[in-house]
Amino acid sequence: MSERGAAGTNDGDRDGWSGSAETAELAERAHLLDRSDPLATTRERFSLPPGLIYLDGNSLGALPTAVPERVAETIRRDWGQGLIASWWDAGWWEAPQRVGELIAPLLGAAPGQVVVGDSTSVNVFRAVVAGWRLAQQDDPGRTEIVVDDTTFPTDGYLAASAGRLLGARVRRAHPTDVNAFDEHTAVALINHVDYRTGRRWDLPAVTSRAQRAGARIVWDLSHSAGAMPVDLDRHGVDLAVGCGYKFLNGGPGAPSYLYVRSELQDRLDQPLPGWSSHAEPFAMEADHRPAPGIVRARGGTPEILSLLALEAALEVWQGVEIEQVRAKSLALTGFFMECVDALTEPGRFRVLTPRGDDRGSQVSLSAPDAAALLPRLADALVVGDHRPPDVLRFGFAPLYVGFTDALRAARTLARVAGRRDVTAG
Amino acid sequence: MSERGAAGTNDGDRDGWSGSAETAELAERAHLLDRSDPLATTRERFSLPPGLIYLDGNSLGALPTAVPERVAETIRRDWGQGLIASWWDAGWWEAPQRVGELIAPLLGAAPGQVVVGDSTSVNVFRAVVAGWRLAQQDDPGRTEIVVDDTTFPTDGYLAASAGRLLGARVRRAHPTDVNAFDEHTAVALINHVDYRTGRRWDLPAVTSRAQRAGARIVWDLSHSAGAMPVDLDRHGVDLAVGCGYKFLNGGPGAPSYLYVRSELQDRLDQPLPGWSSHAEPFAMEADHRPAPGIVRARGGTPEILSLLALEAALEVWQGVEIEQVRAKSLALTGFFMECVDALTEPGRFRVLTPRGDDRGSQVSLSAPDAAALLPRLADALVVGDHRPPDVLRFGFAPLYVGFTDALRAARTLARVAGRRDVTAG
Repeated sequence: MSERGAAGTNDGDRDGWSGSAETAELAERAHLLDRSDPLATTRERFSLPPGLIYLDGNSLGALPTAVPERVAETIRRDWGQGLIASWWDAGWWEAPQRVGELIAPLLGAAPGQVVVGDSTSVNVFRAVVAGWRLAQQDDPGRTEIVVDDTTFPTDGYLAASAGRLLGARVRRAHPTDVNAFDEHTAVALINHVDYRTGRRWDLPAVTSRAQRAGARIVWDLSHSAGAMPVDLDRHGVDLAVGCGYKFLNGGPGAPSYLYVRSELQDRLDQPLPGWSSHAEPFAMEADHRPAPGIVRARGGTPEILSLLALEAALEVWQGVEIEQVRAKSLALTGFFMECVDALTEPGRFRVLTPRGDDRGSQVSLSAPDAAALLPRLADALVVGDHRPPDVLRFGFAPLYVGFTDALRAARTLARVAGRRDVTAG
Repeated sequence: MSERGAAGTNDGDRDGWSGSAETAELAERAHLLDRSDPLATTRERFSLPPGLIYLDGNSLGALPTAVPERVAETIRRDWGQGLIASWWDAGWWEAPQRVGELIAPLLGAAPGQVVVGDSTSVNVFRAVVAGWRLAQQDDPGRTEIVVDDTTFPTDGYLAASAGRLLGARVRRAHPTDVNAFDEHTAVALINHVDYRTGRRWDLPAVTSRAQRAGARIVWDLSHSAGAMPVDLDRHGVDLAVGCGYKFLNGGPGAPSYLYVRSELQDRLDQPLPGWSSHAEPFAMEADHRPAPGIVRARGGTPEILSLLALEAALEVWQGVEIEQVRAKSLALTGFFMECVDALTEPGRFRVLTPRGDDRGSQVSLSAPDAAALLPRLADALVVGDHRPPDVLRFGFAPLYVGFTDALRAARTLARVAGRRDVTAG
């Protein structure tokens, strides 16, 4: 960070903005919204740099205060002193299931259906192949994998790789296309929220369309879970994967999770088994005999330090209802869009994120100079990110971002982007 | 740990062993060997519980002293304060290659050929599929994957899974079989050291046999690298994988590494690509365009906490030559077998590990009551492990195990296993 953001300004406003009746009204509303926010105190569960408005929790969540001590204990006591015995004594062996159970309520999943480990990429591959095979068990004539045409690129690469190995055609379709799936579709891989625009697709409707066509569905929840209810059980989703390091705040590269609906677990046939997915791991049998239940979705040895950091991070959800989070997320992103409308030059930014409730917990703005604006915002202590060619993304993590933050971010944006009645800092 | 190991004994010997001329001679030799050991001081680079003889570093390496602070800084400073910017400012993005370069010298690999990330299981799958495709590029008529018949089970499961996806037959063969590979073999997956017996296979000879048959070879170095030279470049190995948490001491479930010989990298066609293996990761292109060099072997987002723990752990190798490590490893394991011969009842244990230099850095003993002996040894502060049905494994990590440790372990084993001239503690 440079000195610019912290530098004093001639009107005493730290953002260097000269103020107006419009802003005074927004500031008053932000203040009232923060005061009545039932999640106002969860910010204390995170360690954030003072003064920073962090709007990139959809890329890397902030550090929960419980994490450093938990990881330090895992290293010094459990690894350093307990050594190999900690696989049992410190609960490492069961950790993939145990952490899965902590995530399950955020997904609307009853116990026994979520396991944690490996990267999101690896679990996307695992889920697409498993979904394909489930479909083939019912109808071996199906030939296609369908991927949403707004997918995060890696999901598309992995679906293509799976398709090549499985002898499947991979087809792109738009999530709103009512004809996206047909009798050829074996499995569909759909991102719940478009990483670029923040648009949220209709999970119940798309699930239902895929299943009515006889296909299995895999949802990538990376940009939704932790910011809104997803209700996997209620909507009868087959498989889902998601990321541990965005709204779940598990730390850089935190392991991902995999959901497999209970009724499908006995038939699950996944491509990356290991001794930890074996019915008797320590029998060291030459052939893989899959464990019952969600354990059969496990892979190799989990990266314990990263996994237990995620476990500690999940403590921030104690006493938090995901419906509250969603309500605040919609209010925050809505308020931010309103502030951007009010404070920036008309036409300066195009809002890519839907104004209705069909959005996730981010606001995406396009501007030709998006890449150049990003570091200037960071200098002014507002952190978002940039997706090429011209998108600025601002993620709103309701557990640690407030309404005054949203206003300040919009005012800073207006200032760095230039506006007649804004004094440059 | 119970009180038994630490309890006083009537002759002042902490192992409760009554002594003999034979033991006095072994004790004198152990003392001299420790005194002349050029690696005697590397033990100070590890945090080990006082009094514990840890002979399971072939399963989970001990904690290097540099790790706790490095991980704590990564969490508090780089994640907590640096947040998303740490992907660049703290070097997270490049870490898979950077940590690979630290491992490369242990493998006899010139720079630019090793990358770190994902579990060993995932990298075994990645390497077998990539090896198969390299072989197909030269000769599409090849139909088989060969796996050594003493493989760690997971390797076999993943080869079977890869074979099923690739339409390949998977055949088992013994590593000493001169006819193991033929014109049908596309790729061979061989464990360098048998996890069960500790037998080391002849890497140069097997590599040469596979390649003369026109096959590609993948070595699993999990039980060898870090305990002996492997000289991948010198022997023209195609691909290799290995584990970060055994002799590399990277911590529980530390990420694994993947070696791809330079000349093959432009042709590498791996099944688990991601944006981080893309030529332009932030272009977010719909199709995967592989990066040049070893970056093309990367996968999803690496689990940074576990990865940087491994990086810090690799500091223990400063000033250490892998040839010194091998010399000490052979001397230690040889001395331990000699002590077991001398101190235990003849026929009480069968030594499964070769007496010649065709062994790794472990000694495996079979006994019908192996499973029952293990906790009694642990009570007496000697930690090994058990592999069913009847194998006790003792791993000797030359950086933190000495000759007096080896003797004490053998004396403790003799005591808990019962011997006429040994007084039970």
